[in-house]
Amino acid sequence: MDEPATDAKRGTTEMVDHATWADLRWDEHGLIPAVVQDARTGQVLMVAWMNAEALRLTQETGETHFWSRSRGELWHKGATSGHTQRVTAIWADCDGDTLLVQVEPAGPACHTGAVTCFFRPLADQPEEGSLSDE
Amino acid sequence: MDEPATDAKRGTTEMVDHATWADLRWDEHGLIPAVVQDARTGQVLMVAWMNAEALRLTQETGETHFWSRSRGELWHKGATSGHTQRVTAIWADCDGDTLLVQVEPAGPACHTGAVTCFFRPLADQPEEGSLSDE
Repeated sequence: MDEPATDAKRGTTEMVDHATWADLRWDEHGLIPAVVQDARTGQVLMVAWMNAEALRLTQETGETHFWSRSRGELWHKGATSGHTQRVTAIWADCDGDTLLVQVEPAGPACHTGAVTCFFRPLADQPEEGSLSDE
Repeated sequence: MDEPATDAKRGTTEMVDHATWADLRWDEHGLIPAVVQDARTGQVLMVAWMNAEALRLTQETGETHFWSRSRGELWHKGATSGHTQRVTAIWADCDGDTLLVQVEPAGPACHTGAVTCFFRPLADQPEEGSLSDE
């Protein structure tokens, strides 16, 4: 991000307002969503979930780790595919319930082989009558 | 996105693989997370939640609408601040459980006045002993 914050630019680098782990708000399952963005292109690659252990490993190793909700296990991104993601920065949002993880990816983010998991434009809403709101 | 999908580039524009509403996987609360990205700068602005009505209104009006989990109500972004977000594209991810909404924002995304809600870098993990994993 070129413009991380107006406030952060006023003072010296020591005055940057960091979020701490204590600021993070985990959901009822102990998870926090992490948006993964290519640090070079700005492309949003994927959204996955971290528990405390996944975030700790991500910070410790400098490569993304997640919690797989479907498999119920820790997941080192790229462990089998080789498409690891080297972390260049982690940001917390204003209320601490989402992370933005900027990475340099070693390959496609998506298990389909696509660069990003967001490769399908969403079609317009279904025709009237196919929704059950009234 | 410059590279929405390898597959989508093989054929004519009619062959682009769209996601439909039927492909979307809402969570147990009927919500789906939406990553909001500035279409011009690539900056990730915020993550918020949509229910079906919020997504329908977003597509219908071309401005972002969300479901506020804290207030328990629909929320037209910018309705009071004027900082609306004009939608330029909506993408579904590979498994349909997250949306990427690209917008042209009329003002800061964050209620703090920051351009993006992700203005705080996350500090490193707490020292050993302050986590209760063992």
